[in-house]
Amino acid sequence: MELTQAHRDALQDILLWRRDVRHFLPDPVPQDVLDRLRKAMDFAPSVGNARPWRVLHVKSTKRRNAVIQNFEAENAKAAKLYQDDQRAAYNALKLAGLREAPVHLAIFTETEPDAGHGLGRQTMPEMLNYSTVAAIHTLWLAARAENLGVGWVSILDPKAVAQALDAVPNWQLTGYLCIGKAASDDDTPLLHRNAWQANAMTKWQEI
Amino acid sequence: MELTQAHRDALQDILLWRRDVRHFLPDPVPQDVLDRLRKAMDFAPSVGNARPWRVLHVKSTKRRNAVIQNFEAENAKAAKLYQDDQRAAYNALKLAGLREAPVHLAIFTETEPDAGHGLGRQTMPEMLNYSTVAAIHTLWLAARAENLGVGWVSILDPKAVAQALDAVPNWQLTGYLCIGKAASDDDTPLLHRNAWQANAMTKWQEI
Repeated sequence: MELTQAHRDALQDILLWRRDVRHFLPDPVPQDVLDRLRKAMDFAPSVGNARPWRVLHVKSTKRRNAVIQNFEAENAKAAKLYQDDQRAAYNALKLAGLREAPVHLAIFTETEPDAGHGLGRQTMPEMLNYSTVAAIHTLWLAARAENLGVGWVSILDPKAVAQALDAVPNWQLTGYLCIGKAASDDDTPLLHRNAWQANAMTKWQEI
Repeated sequence: MELTQAHRDALQDILLWRRDVRHFLPDPVPQDVLDRLRKAMDFAPSVGNARPWRVLHVKSTKRRNAVIQNFEAENAKAAKLYQDDQRAAYNALKLAGLREAPVHLAIFTETEPDAGHGLGRQTMPEMLNYSTVAAIHTLWLAARAENLGVGWVSILDPKAVAQALDAVPNWQLTGYLCIGKAASDDDTPLLHRNAWQANAMTKWQEI
């Protein structure tokens, strides 16, 4: 299958306009779109073809509130690491759209799956988690192509969240995602735009 | 930026025809293509916009040979985990194209970067490694759109490889990639095709 300049241009648009979204509109996401996002994950690479990602679609208000409370507690703790102006800058950032986003997904990694029969993960067991990350990134790009935003919330205690969601014991929380229509589009990361951390170009060093 | 059905179709082609490639042709990859792959990594998501990926483009035959030797030793150890028919099946798999692939990249994660000022990684420090995985996956898709294959070699001792490549002490090996023209195209994972591990569809469980 020979891919074309049109494929490269389309991928470039999707990559350029993908953001970590924290400002969502409350519009619901139609079920057929969610189905397509779910299917997109099937195309992610995984070690030993183990596909160790496990997804909880969190609809219960009670469970969502537990996640929001955990985020708020951990975010308050994180703010205390900074002093003076930097703490004020941190507190001015909006770091999650958990209250507004219509869709919440908790994405776990099964740590001892039978699938794959251990192939490719003896020396680097973290390859299972990395497979799940690739599945999250695949979903993220597919969502952007559907004109939906995704926000990855990492300011959470992963064990507390797993417990609040009654996750299976050998599931490790890899990412907690908010999905919905973004309030606005941007081709520049918000943390660059608001001067928290400027973009830096990738360098390759030859050896 | 409103993306279209053409974007979604193009992404689907790229995802469907992306493989973990172990059979490479020796054709060199032009420098302008490598430059585009390097730039594609700039568009990966990263925690705190920290962009913690560090890339060594391994050209030295001596260093490549050290990596190949490490792969062969670790692969022989891994084979011993299996018995009888399964061991024979494992040994029949070709799990890396290190000898043929024209381009080798060793991709590390800087574990304590200043960039990002710690944002988003207090409770989940693994977010730095996950950012690097997203950058690897971004490069992988960009490579496929350029009609190049990528193989992620994880049957390596990450510390031994970092040492063989004289990596900076706080760099952790996240992925070792082979890049080049694939010997053939396929829309199905090789481990499914050769019956090591069948594909499984992603499920979402509502809670």
